[in-house]
Amino acid sequence: MEFDLNAATAVLSRTPGVLRAWLEGLPQDWITESEGPGTWSPYDVVGHLIHGERTDWIPRARIILEHGEARAFEPFDRFAQFRDSEGKRVEDLLEEFAALRAENLATLRKLDLSQADLEKTGLHPDLGRVRLRELLATWTAHDLNHMVQIARTMARQCGYAVGPWKAYLSVLQHRGSAGAHSS
Amino acid sequence: MEFDLNAATAVLSRTPGVLRAWLEGLPQDWITESEGPGTWSPYDVVGHLIHGERTDWIPRARIILEHGEARAFEPFDRFAQFRDSEGKRVEDLLEEFAALRAENLATLRKLDLSQADLEKTGLHPDLGRVRLRELLATWTAHDLNHMVQIARTMARQCGYAVGPWKAYLSVLQHRGSAGAHSS
Repeated sequence: MEFDLNAATAVLSRTPGVLRAWLEGLPQDWITESEGPGTWSPYDVVGHLIHGERTDWIPRARIILEHGEARAFEPFDRFAQFRDSEGKRVEDLLEEFAALRAENLATLRKLDLSQADLEKTGLHPDLGRVRLRELLATWTAHDLNHMVQIARTMARQCGYAVGPWKAYLSVLQHRGSAGAHSS
Repeated sequence: MEFDLNAATAVLSRTPGVLRAWLEGLPQDWITESEGPGTWSPYDVVGHLIHGERTDWIPRARIILEHGEARAFEPFDRFAQFRDSEGKRVEDLLEEFAALRAENLATLRKLDLSQADLEKTGLHPDLGRVRLRELLATWTAHDLNHMVQIARTMARQCGYAVGPWKAYLSVLQHRGSAGAHSS
């Protein structure tokens, strides 16, 4: 698919509801187990998504619109959630994420981006020149990437329990890459 | 995690709500695009989950409880959804899946399985001897496996649009295995 702002926001607006339906009230083991040292639990992922809402997508869109390539993006902190989520229940994080996402999508609508705006460029500290439409597509793909991670992490908790069916479940076959980042 | 019936049903009972929050009202391209020839769209996956509710998990649990290894399971039809879903909207499928899942979980509760029941064995046409607890763990892992597939399939629609960020999104790095089966 080519980039389509409506298609992107259709996914972005649904993610908080998906995560709520999935994680709210779930027994704690599902929420806090990761795939092993250095990998993230569903709890960690929600915290990471919150940090993205605060510092990544809309703040970077504003930098592109206001400064173009004259001002590089701030590097993204991939570990912020380990500090920021401390002491919070997953339900608190889900609520915080939903509020921030709604606010950011409202901002996006207000920006009322034209096709010419979407072609505008900014400067990523590592990737170099990027376009606004690529940033917004990445926001969407990043949500989905972390949905993959949550489902995979949870599925792997069942790895031993499924017995011989392990051979039929592709998610249990390979150790996929541990994380997903898009700083 | 060891197999835990409450942990399993916590996931199984949430899946219909997750899929509704994710797919209901989503633009058609997200619903019907697959990862290429021979792979499944989110629409196909929901149809496949419906067929599992009808013919796989609870029917096989009953065979284990009533016949043990004396009667092998019916082979699972991995392509039934291409016939059964014809002419239905994804919203119809989501409703059908939710109703069947609720019914099957009610049946599971009524079975009131003991630890001894969970150790009972049946005969899979290809895998040979399997235990009831393995069947129920697989039901759970199978849901999650297909969540991975839906998220991955959708993410890959953004593959081109993300530009240089492709390098940071693990889901866009590898062509994972196309499907997920657990017949």
